[in-house]
Amino acid sequence: MSRVNNLEILRHSTAHVLAAAVLEMFPDAKFGIGPAIENGFYYDFDLPRTLIPEDLPILEEKMKAIIKANYPFDKEEISAKNALEHFKKAGQDYKIELIKDLEKEKAKNVSVYKTNGFVDLCSGPHLDSTGEINAEALKLTRISGAYWKSDEKNKQLQRIYGVAFENKKELGEYLAQMEEAGKRDHRKIGRELGLFYIDENVGKGLPLWMPKGAILRQTLERFIEDEETKRGYMRTYTPVIGNVRLYKISGHWEHYKDDMYPAMKIENEEYVLRPMTCPHQFMIYKADQHSYKELPLRYAELAEMYRREKSGELSGLARVMGFTLNDAHIICAPEQLEQEFLGVLDLVKFSLKSLGLDKEIWFRASLRDKEKAKYLDNEKLWDESEESLLKILKKAGVKYETGIGDAAFYGPKADIQIKNVHGKEETLITIQIDLNSAERFDMTYVDNEGKKQRPVIIHRSAIGCIERTVAFLIEHFAGAFPIWLSPVQAVVLPISEEKFGAYALQVKEKLIATGIRAELDDSKESLGKRISEAEKQKIPYMLVVGEKEMNADSVAIRSRGDKKQEVMKVDEFVEKIKKEIEGKK
Amino acid sequence: MSRVNNLEILRHSTAHVLAAAVLEMFPDAKFGIGPAIENGFYYDFDLPRTLIPEDLPILEEKMKAIIKANYPFDKEEISAKNALEHFKKAGQDYKIELIKDLEKEKAKNVSVYKTNGFVDLCSGPHLDSTGEINAEALKLTRISGAYWKSDEKNKQLQRIYGVAFENKKELGEYLAQMEEAGKRDHRKIGRELGLFYIDENVGKGLPLWMPKGAILRQTLERFIEDEETKRGYMRTYTPVIGNVRLYKISGHWEHYKDDMYPAMKIENEEYVLRPMTCPHQFMIYKADQHSYKELPLRYAELAEMYRREKSGELSGLARVMGFTLNDAHIICAPEQLEQEFLGVLDLVKFSLKSLGLDKEIWFRASLRDKEKAKYLDNEKLWDESEESLLKILKKAGVKYETGIGDAAFYGPKADIQIKNVHGKEETLITIQIDLNSAERFDMTYVDNEGKKQRPVIIHRSAIGCIERTVAFLIEHFAGAFPIWLSPVQAVVLPISEEKFGAYALQVKEKLIATGIRAELDDSKESLGKRISEAEKQKIPYMLVVGEKEMNADSVAIRSRGDKKQEVMKVDEFVEKIKKEIEGKK
Repeated sequence: MSRVNNLEILRHSTAHVLAAAVLEMFPDAKFGIGPAIENGFYYDFDLPRTLIPEDLPILEEKMKAIIKANYPFDKEEISAKNALEHFKKAGQDYKIELIKDLEKEKAKNVSVYKTNGFVDLCSGPHLDSTGEINAEALKLTRISGAYWKSDEKNKQLQRIYGVAFENKKELGEYLAQMEEAGKRDHRKIGRELGLFYIDENVGKGLPLWMPKGAILRQTLERFIEDEETKRGYMRTYTPVIGNVRLYKISGHWEHYKDDMYPAMKIENEEYVLRPMTCPHQFMIYKADQHSYKELPLRYAELAEMYRREKSGELSGLARVMGFTLNDAHIICAPEQLEQEFLGVLDLVKFSLKSLGLDKEIWFRASLRDKEKAKYLDNEKLWDESEESLLKILKKAGVKYETGIGDAAFYGPKADIQIKNVHGKEETLITIQIDLNSAERFDMTYVDNEGKKQRPVIIHRSAIGCIERTVAFLIEHFAGAFPIWLSPVQAVVLPISEEKFGAYALQVKEKLIATGIRAELDDSKESLGKRISEAEKQKIPYMLVVGEKEMNADSVAIRSRGDKKQEVMKVDEFVEKIKKEIEGKK
Repeated sequence: MSRVNNLEILRHSTAHVLAAAVLEMFPDAKFGIGPAIENGFYYDFDLPRTLIPEDLPILEEKMKAIIKANYPFDKEEISAKNALEHFKKAGQDYKIELIKDLEKEKAKNVSVYKTNGFVDLCSGPHLDSTGEINAEALKLTRISGAYWKSDEKNKQLQRIYGVAFENKKELGEYLAQMEEAGKRDHRKIGRELGLFYIDENVGKGLPLWMPKGAILRQTLERFIEDEETKRGYMRTYTPVIGNVRLYKISGHWEHYKDDMYPAMKIENEEYVLRPMTCPHQFMIYKADQHSYKELPLRYAELAEMYRREKSGELSGLARVMGFTLNDAHIICAPEQLEQEFLGVLDLVKFSLKSLGLDKEIWFRASLRDKEKAKYLDNEKLWDESEESLLKILKKAGVKYETGIGDAAFYGPKADIQIKNVHGKEETLITIQIDLNSAERFDMTYVDNEGKKQRPVIIHRSAIGCIERTVAFLIEHFAGAFPIWLSPVQAVVLPISEEKFGAYALQVKEKLIATGIRAELDDSKESLGKRISEAEKQKIPYMLVVGEKEMNADSVAIRSRGDKKQEVMKVDEFVEKIKKEIEGKK
């Protein structure tokens, strides 16, 4: 058995130990389910009172005692009928429901595991005895609510999460990573730096970009807009709603409706918030008859769109209901597909380098799996487009993994993958080949013989969804963004406002006039306190000015995260910082 | 009787003459209504066949004959009962319905007018006889559909529009203005120049900005964003939807709901497409407790929003369902209101100057009227804010008209007015004083004594709604935009592609590298045809290159609308055009 499976058994067994500990604390506890998950486990309970964080160390102590006592995990195979009888007597309503579910699936026997007094309906496997768990390598981490069977209509149970490892060192490493991730949490830093804010009166999952976040976003958006223009993209602006007809043509109404917002009826038409930009840009293409001479056409847009997410799953900028995608559709002749795709890969690499993420990413070829109902039905096109994708990735000399079942419903894609601060893999950017939409939307071009042909379409992003990318950047840099993205690039700090305030203001104005985002902090606080505040705000440069600096047209520069000061002429500093901003250091 | 009333009588009488002419052509015609309108009249008919444009001159001839015959307009006062009998006999169902409506309003007698064989239910007044109409000063202009009583559930009738004036000269002037307006129609030019496109699959009133329009829009947006930044505005980005709660707090749900899109239910919350940005930016303000030291706070956003319009009233970019407002809210202490408002007036003047419209505009102080139900109920605040507005406009030395009843429901406003190419007055930009929302949204700041106070809010735009402003600019400049806004600023035209194509490309690349929007037209068409195409596209500069130019690193420049050519070194031209772009000439 592989190590992973051993760990899974360890974690699942630890969940049973937790349940046994809860039973000691609450003899009337009713038990839901308690599976192993990544790094640990959870267990859902229906308890006579709400748990408080202080309960966790008490439960941990009880778990350690159970481990020390080294109780066996006794498995018993019994008839469903007997099991039902046992759990009815114990008043375990949730287990009864689970057994009835098993009976519906024609199960005659079920297995139960006993650990000291705790009996659980469970198919295992488990360790031999509780003593095999390392008491020093486990920790209960948090309490949350969870609906029975994840259904909002059911009762909400209390869920306890824990982690368990083979040894203390692994636990320590995990906890340290989590602590660091907690410090880097983009929701926390986003609030501290005044980047964004979520107000329930507007809506969960609908972030408001505050002024400092808005500057960062504007900088990022203009950067990618200008880069796209340089590379021959043309811009469009299209509305965030569209007639439902568009999504009936695209197939989204059939395959994706549950992820879309409800339709709005106006006069005799139904409109819906768009979940993607494709049909809007396709309509622009269709406004004119295009010739092969015009292709490829690259339409780019910073496109706002809306997709439904369960409110419980929303999180800061990372998981939202409405977002803005740096989107584009390249419409080209089939023989141009390869070169255009390579061009996109080059742009993506360039963008990620500018963001300081190029070393962190890897590629995934996301293909379809065997569940055909999930995908548009055209075997031949799927074969062709998957083949094209793999050929292009090889040609680009890109190393990639293969993700079976990760394709979009309308085509295969190349995903750019990255690990977040929690160590979890995320998709940052997607490039898709679409041999399908041209047919659905009846898009054509006239070839050099005057015949109408179907173009091929690439759906692509170059920096991904603005919200998620910024969430990622906040955590990756712990708020200390590369200088070109920093909302405030330099703050001027007069040693005394009274004496050097005027000079400090003059320095600030000079920086602003050259396009540097500068602030002046001339509040009455001590210099030390103002430096510390600027450090908290992760401002790249603090420019301290006093008598000496004033007389020499200079500033004493202190870099973010570096305590030593360096005196420089103001003009010299302007040159230095401008170079760093332009160089995207 | 004033001239205007004389004209109204003339036009209404001409409508009767039209009806009499239609009766000659279609003895079974049923008649709807036929009032005088601005510049002319219309009449609605239920006819046995659909009218075609060729019918209009025939009808005009018949009208002229009726005028020449000089029939009297005979008025007769008869009982409603007799009138009903008459129109029943004549099969005039619509007139019967109108008489019944009058009976419901307790009318006993009605008046009818007879003109030769045509009898109409009409309260008049009319001219004495048809001969008083100037047959040379009338014209039937168009045919359209119109629901009986403007209700979609009723039958659609055929409406004939006409214009009528006192003399031939006035008609000629009007027709010339309409012809010019028709040439400048932004829908026509927008399509010709590839600026925007409306596709019914996306939705009426939901324009798609095509690449050339998108460049213009991006240029305009970046211009105003940067100008706002210079003037101490901070940016926000907020979502296009919000919880319905926001609009219950703001009062829009009560006063403005019919103009909003239908709500969308998600889980247990209701969301709606926003009709304005205010509540979103207010929530950003409320995210933190602000001190008087931070005020004024100026939050700006290019904010997309949605308001319902009847589909029949939609028109290109000028009348839309979804639009983007160059919006801002200035939140300040009451004592800062005046200065802030003056600052806005200064910005508006600056922006309009950059757009080349500063000479065309005038101001209107839009105040409330006596229909109190239309406005938020707070007499004292209304008095105060109207007084403030007038005081500030006086202080700014701005000449203004007063628009009684033109206020927003939540406060008075200064409107920037302009005449469109049809000679009609439009509101381009609005600045509002709002002494109300701070209370409703519980917005506060802490004053210098540590007490919480209510701020005052200015809602303002500086270039208005992007869609409408661009519609206006297209018509105002007939597509020949100021150079800084032109989608293509220069086109390079090699005399022969074969011989000078490489040099032409080099010139184009050089222009693009310096930030000029340049194109190359090296198609096989003759130079004359390519110049004519560039003129149609209203490109400011055409750069012709041949042997002489290639050998001298120069270009032969031809300006838009100017046939003479001037030869210039490429570098010299770059300097010249950059200066013009920067100077916003």
